Amino acid sequence: MCRWLAYSGSPILIEELLYKTDHSLIDQSLHSRLGVETTNGDGFGVGWYGTNTATPAVFRSIEPAWNDRNLREVAGHVESPLFLAHIRASTGTAVQQTNCHPFRYEKWLWVHNGLVRDFHLIKRELALAVDGSLYPSIEGSTDSELLFYLALTLGLEDDPPGAVARMVGLVEEAGRHHGIEHPIQMTIGTADGRNVWAFRYSSEGKSRSLYYSSDVRTLREMYPERPRLQEASDESRIIVSEPIVELAGAWNEVPESSYGVVHEGEDELRPFRPIYSRDGG
Amino acid sequence: MCRWLAYSGSPILIEELLYKTDHSLIDQSLHSRLGVETTNGDGFGVGWYGTNTATPAVFRSIEPAWNDRNLREVAGHVESPLFLAHIRASTGTAVQQTNCHPFRYEKWLWVHNGLVRDFHLIKRELALAVDGSLYPSIEGSTDSELLFYLALTLGLEDDPPGAVARMVGLVEEAGRHHGIEHPIQMTIGTADGRNVWAFRYSSEGKSRSLYYSSDVRTLREMYPERPRLQEASDESRIIVSEPIVELAGAWNEVPESSYGVVHEGEDELRPFRPIYSRDGG
Amino acid sequence: MCRWLAYSGSPILIEELLYKTDHSLIDQSLHSRLGVETTNGDGFGVGWYGTNTATPAVFRSIEPAWNDRNLREVAGHVESPLFLAHIRASTGTAVQQTNCHPFRYEKWLWVHNGLVRDFHLIKRELALAVDGSLYPSIEGSTDSELLFYLALTLGLEDDPPGAVARMVGLVEEAGRHHGIEHPIQMTIGTADGRNVWAFRYSSEGKSRSLYYSSDVRTLREMYPERPRLQEASDESRIIVSEPIVELAGAWNEVPESSYGVVHEGEDELRPFRPIYSRDGG
Amino acid sequence: MCRWLAYSGSPILIEELLYKTDHSLIDQSLHSRLGVETTNGDGFGVGWYGTNTATPAVFRSIEPAWNDRNLREVAGHVESPLFLAHIRASTGTAVQQTNCHPFRYEKWLWVHNGLVRDFHLIKRELALAVDGSLYPSIEGSTDSELLFYLALTLGLEDDPPGAVARMVGLVEEAGRHHGIEHPIQMTIGTADGRNVWAFRYSSEGKSRSLYYSSDVRTLREMYPERPRLQEASDESRIIVSEPIVELAGAWNEVPESSYGVVHEGEDELRPFRPIYSRDGG
Repeated sequence: MCRWLAYSGSPILIEELLYKTDHSLIDQSLHSRLGVETTNGDGFGVGWYGTNTATPAVFRSIEPAWNDRNLREVAGHVESPLFLAHIRASTGTAVQQTNCHPFRYEKWLWVHNGLVRDFHLIKRELALAVDGSLYPSIEGSTDSELLFYLALTLGLEDDPPGAVARMVGLVEEAGRHHGIEHPIQMTIGTADGRNVWAFRYSSEGKSRSLYYSSDVRTLREMYPERPRLQEASDESRIIVSEPIVELAGAWNEVPESSYGVVHEGEDELRPFRPIYSRDGG
Repeated sequence: MCRWLAYSGSPILIEELLYKTDHSLIDQSLHSRLGVETTNGDGFGVGWYGTNTATPAVFRSIEPAWNDRNLREVAGHVESPLFLAHIRASTGTAVQQTNCHPFRYEKWLWVHNGLVRDFHLIKRELALAVDGSLYPSIEGSTDSELLFYLALTLGLEDDPPGAVARMVGLVEEAGRHHGIEHPIQMTIGTADGRNVWAFRYSSEGKSRSLYYSSDVRTLREMYPERPRLQEASDESRIIVSEPIVELAGAWNEVPESSYGVVHEGEDELRPFRPIYSRDGG
Repeated sequence: MCRWLAYSGSPILIEELLYKTDHSLIDQSLHSRLGVETTNGDGFGVGWYGTNTATPAVFRSIEPAWNDRNLREVAGHVESPLFLAHIRASTGTAVQQTNCHPFRYEKWLWVHNGLVRDFHLIKRELALAVDGSLYPSIEGSTDSELLFYLALTLGLEDDPPGAVARMVGLVEEAGRHHGIEHPIQMTIGTADGRNVWAFRYSSEGKSRSLYYSSDVRTLREMYPERPRLQEASDESRIIVSEPIVELAGAWNEVPESSYGVVHEGEDELRPFRPIYSRDGG
Repeated sequence: MCRWLAYSGSPILIEELLYKTDHSLIDQSLHSRLGVETTNGDGFGVGWYGTNTATPAVFRSIEPAWNDRNLREVAGHVESPLFLAHIRASTGTAVQQTNCHPFRYEKWLWVHNGLVRDFHLIKRELALAVDGSLYPSIEGSTDSELLFYLALTLGLEDDPPGAVARMVGLVEEAGRHHGIEHPIQMTIGTADGRNVWAFRYSSEGKSRSLYYSSDVRTLREMYPERPRLQEASDESRIIVSEPIVELAGAWNEVPESSYGVVHEGEDELRPFRPIYSRDGG
């Protein structure tokens, strides 16, 4: 329903990935190829980490991304070593800034593509599971933001993969208790300023698409005419809902039911499975 | 922190009260005299009942009311026998359409001036008290909307004064349990398409201002140059946070801790006191 | 580039044509079939005539029409005997309220689908041709609004077909003087509260699509389940960029280079050709 | 009618001047003391120069500055050695992004406080005086933007003080030709990325207020608790419509009918007088 992108590597202008590729994220806002909806015009957001500030900046708007002049200005003038961007196609909740991704809590950012099915049936139950000290920070009405606060409640800051696994387990248990066959569909990106975690999972085992760039050598081949990318560090990495440029060998699909971590040193790709309360998680 | 207005009577163009008086609601959005804040520029809304539709229309926007061209257009072309309008000065929650008043649930409208003090301390507890079938309809993040859903949970549709009394009791009990001395400050207007109820109350006994127009004869004197108001039925009535025109004798203050009902037949003005759970309410 | 719709007949809720048909104008904002662009998400507008006010109301917004809650509210609660609606796909000019159609001047409304090619080359020359008393009323930066003010300058209020013919002649002369092969592409709808004129023309003789509903008997067949349309007067008529419902026989194409008038009495359909200054027009 | 601010010096976070002083520009948007209007809620803008890009970034919005979360994010995360910010109180023209300051043309930024009186009488004449190659770049409908394009037409890029003097001369001549006694009222800030020019002038000789910070030693005294300002270069300079902090000796008024230049080396303050066409300018 949405499209997102994460970048980690040497600092680049945000517009390099948002505007300046053949099938950039902004192009996808009008003409998505792999998404459930071809138009992602119900708001957007970009969150970026800098070097001088404790928390990431978040720029979100309810205008379609393809129209927003301020996004173009910011993307064209801000360099960042780690940023997440998201374009939204609402599945029914209000189009408002507080429903746009990324969501932020202190140094954490969170983007989501997918949905909690029959959300209205279990929204209250999920909201009650959020820690009392976190609850007042929820500003919007989306399932995506609630998943973030559940993950925070369940330990995101200490153990992101475990917290997301427990969050998914909790949602699936709540959903199935209400007779929902496949409660959750998701790709999720989350970051703390140093690492990016990307998850691909769905209750039905047919998850939304998610790709990561092979490695920076391929990336350099992809953009021979982009001096900044030629200077990209070897560890630069892009994760996307759908490829932003066509080039054989440039993209690997994140496998079904798995997650990856992008950070200093070797990146990791591991299986993902929910942790249920009966598991003692 | 906000200003609101309710009208009930013969159908008039909404702009008659929103724009065409000396100290109209739109003027108050820039230059409030009696409000805590002089500027009420954080969004607005107007809800009106027509004759052909089951539920009232609600037009809400995050632009300052004094700027909004669409509000001027709608107000200048729509006639209504019963409408509520509200201009907002946010006390911290996000400026977004779903936080603008009036809130609507089926045929009911709701506007609020005031606040729940230390709202973040008891928001979760109050949210949990909302009926499970109503909970998913909450779209925004304000105290005002939550008060509405609590009142709906506690019987607004059958007994508005009783439901509001129980809602206030619940908020005061929750607040005092958390050490909040004066949990609630409010004037509230609510309507079902035939009646308007207006409440003035605060835990500290010093409530925000609220006035009602004396009677239509006075009203006609007030606007000798307004043909439509000359034709107003004898039962036409205006309730406002602060007078929209200066005229000796035209306005009566709603007394501290009381509520009024405007409807066919004689209007009523009665004392208001919260009903606490220990009261068996 | 855009889509528009005009209705004239017995008063109906605006939503009947904007939302409640299979391929309604709002549906076309996301999924246009016949337009140059499939997405018309760069703002919208609706202008309607009432019975009590001298000038039509105009409601315009830069949000995509499919998202705008206020549009849905207004369309669902306002009845009108004559209205124009427009959804925009910008060809480059800013997305702002003053660039949304319909444009209004006193009792006149104006919508346009198409463009002036190489507009930047002749914008100044066209602006200079606008009457000095009208010039300050131009608020936006589109070719469409400028065409309206040129038509007003050239006699729209007295002789709409003649004024539009002179306007097109002037644009083509200015364009060809600057080496533009096919200066104008247009379907235009304009109304004065009693009549609607619809024009289809382009310099290259391949104009954007334009249709009108056959007659109200067909219309009644189209919507057997719509009580209000069953009560529509025999003279009710819809003009659209592309059909809002599929039904054999319901729609007639406005022929290339022609215009129609919808008014009391028999409607007219006539050839359209530009009037050039050398014609003595 | 508006308030603006310019900064030139060592790079600082934009928020230092927009938010973090006692009477910051954002505070002035709600509570201006010296302005004609106390509320400047009709949009805002900030333009900043960076180090890596050819043209300045411009972030403009129609929301009141005090509400805009994106402004806070950008201001809190972007450092700049030279920026202009503006908060708007419309004198009648539409509240839209293209009417917000700063205006930008290539590397130039432009902010204005004041107005052209009876602008509707001479707007067309002034528009015609804009160079044909610049005309299509005008996007909004304000007097302020037109003054910018007139200055560009009259040589801003080569000789800013001369161009502004000729622009003012042209406006006064056009105005007086139409019987306008005092055609122009202005303080203007303009920058090219290396220098800032600030003008204070009005036809009646009673110009809107304008101040510049005395010198950086005073500035350091003003904010002893601000490490970044302590590190400010000796040439750091602030120009403002009204002081953003109260401190004896910190601010000098720009004298009536004069202009200043802030740049590397000694700053200058000189008399300003319009150049009329009869002067051979």
